[in-house]
Amino acid sequence: MATIHFTKGQGTGNDFVLYSDPEGRLPLTAAQIAGICDRHFGVGADGVIRAVRSAHLPEGEAALAEDDGATWFMDYYNADGSPAEMCGNGIRVYVRYLLETGLAELPEGGTIAIGTRSGVRDVQRSTTGFQVDLGRWDLDGGEPLVRAKELPIARPGLGIDMGNPHVVVAVADESELDAADLSYIPHIEPAPEHGANVEFVVPHEPLVKDGVGRIRMRVHERGSGETLSCGTGAAAAALAVRYWAGAAAPNQWRVDVPGGTVGVRMFPTEDGEHVALSGPAELVFTGTLDLA
Amino acid sequence: MATIHFTKGQGTGNDFVLYSDPEGRLPLTAAQIAGICDRHFGVGADGVIRAVRSAHLPEGEAALAEDDGATWFMDYYNADGSPAEMCGNGIRVYVRYLLETGLAELPEGGTIAIGTRSGVRDVQRSTTGFQVDLGRWDLDGGEPLVRAKELPIARPGLGIDMGNPHVVVAVADESELDAADLSYIPHIEPAPEHGANVEFVVPHEPLVKDGVGRIRMRVHERGSGETLSCGTGAAAAALAVRYWAGAAAPNQWRVDVPGGTVGVRMFPTEDGEHVALSGPAELVFTGTLDLA
Repeated sequence: MATIHFTKGQGTGNDFVLYSDPEGRLPLTAAQIAGICDRHFGVGADGVIRAVRSAHLPEGEAALAEDDGATWFMDYYNADGSPAEMCGNGIRVYVRYLLETGLAELPEGGTIAIGTRSGVRDVQRSTTGFQVDLGRWDLDGGEPLVRAKELPIARPGLGIDMGNPHVVVAVADESELDAADLSYIPHIEPAPEHGANVEFVVPHEPLVKDGVGRIRMRVHERGSGETLSCGTGAAAAALAVRYWAGAAAPNQWRVDVPGGTVGVRMFPTEDGEHVALSGPAELVFTGTLDLA
Repeated sequence: MATIHFTKGQGTGNDFVLYSDPEGRLPLTAAQIAGICDRHFGVGADGVIRAVRSAHLPEGEAALAEDDGATWFMDYYNADGSPAEMCGNGIRVYVRYLLETGLAELPEGGTIAIGTRSGVRDVQRSTTGFQVDLGRWDLDGGEPLVRAKELPIARPGLGIDMGNPHVVVAVADESELDAADLSYIPHIEPAPEHGANVEFVVPHEPLVKDGVGRIRMRVHERGSGETLSCGTGAAAAALAVRYWAGAAAPNQWRVDVPGGTVGVRMFPTEDGEHVALSGPAELVFTGTLDLA
């Protein structure tokens, strides 16, 4: 029976079990991860993050991460044990974990490169915690009709590709946002082939204050149901509202999600516009678990 | 900032944060308990159990417990921080905790008396874990009509008083049991003044095998919604089905709940019939948490 020492962390309510395996000797099976993530019989989490040095990953992933100076790889798994590419809230918590356990350093004003299955991501400190560059994004061209259970009518959404598919829908007001029953998968017409994460948004009044756009959203994540927060979803929501607001809209946004508040910033780079996500990252407790 | 060392345990999916405070020096505030029980921002649990010696409780509770030889008191709190009287699954996990941490001993065939807010409860080992004597029970005389969301018709229930109020309802078959949407409070007519826990049950086929009655149930707990298990609810369900089955029905029952299986046994005592609950109790992990 193996024992793991872990840390539980969360960012805007998205929560993770993190453990350190620098040499890559303690991979978990999908069944072990699912057991750990079970909220009644295990530890309980949205996912498991293994801290492993890029040099100790299998060849392909190692090359991907190490070439860009990412000493550490975020080996992220969903609650069902399946590997995931990236998690915008998870990577902030992961960097907090690397720093507080002394595995890595991040001088004030500096950047740390983190390897993920969707490439290397740069993370820096922000006023609320950490900011991660999510990279490029695209309009996916679709404007499907979306209807959530308990809402009176279907409304047009905007398809946004953040590496994963999103459809953002503006609803009439706060009461309509509150009324949506997201324990059911929202109906999308035409239906995206592989499903989509769906963000329902309302602007604050006024939409822009002190140069910052302000919206509130709820999200239904593909395969997970309603969640307290979704990093790429918050970015997609801000991008969609900026698109609808037109040329004068700001490139800095505050997005209120059920689990807290994140910041979204759009900025030009040599390879096109990038979008960055910022927000809190907390370590909650440490634990020791005997694995079956 | 205070630090607590805790153990997380569960019995048929009902889960608890347990910590040791023999001298009664580390009570938690309701806000701290609610924070600990939060499944995304805290540790996550259905309740918190403080292991405190009866001698170190405030006068009234201490007298209640110590006079009957209960060295240890189960200081139980619901997830919202409110104190609770008893928990049939929690007390098994509590005894497991006392034994594995060396705070108490329970020789094979022996009994340990545990103080609770509803009096002293005797616990002994059972084949599946532990058995607790829940004490006396009563028919409460009511036969209200109960209807769960998504079920075709209202059905008559049987009111059972286990110290807390229950209404047990037999549904037509497994598919009707599965169809009930217990994310909504079942409608009870006439409505009990203080609400009730509602158990929906179906018999297995055959109902009695090798002298043991066998049922499956789902439960909506007053104030909590649908849960994976409810100890007093399982006892109430077995009592109701025995009542409906008539004189030949057995006094030993196996009750399948969403989180596993518990046993219910009825037996005569000098002060009337008692009902006992048996089932598993597991310690899952240990942890350390800094309290805000």
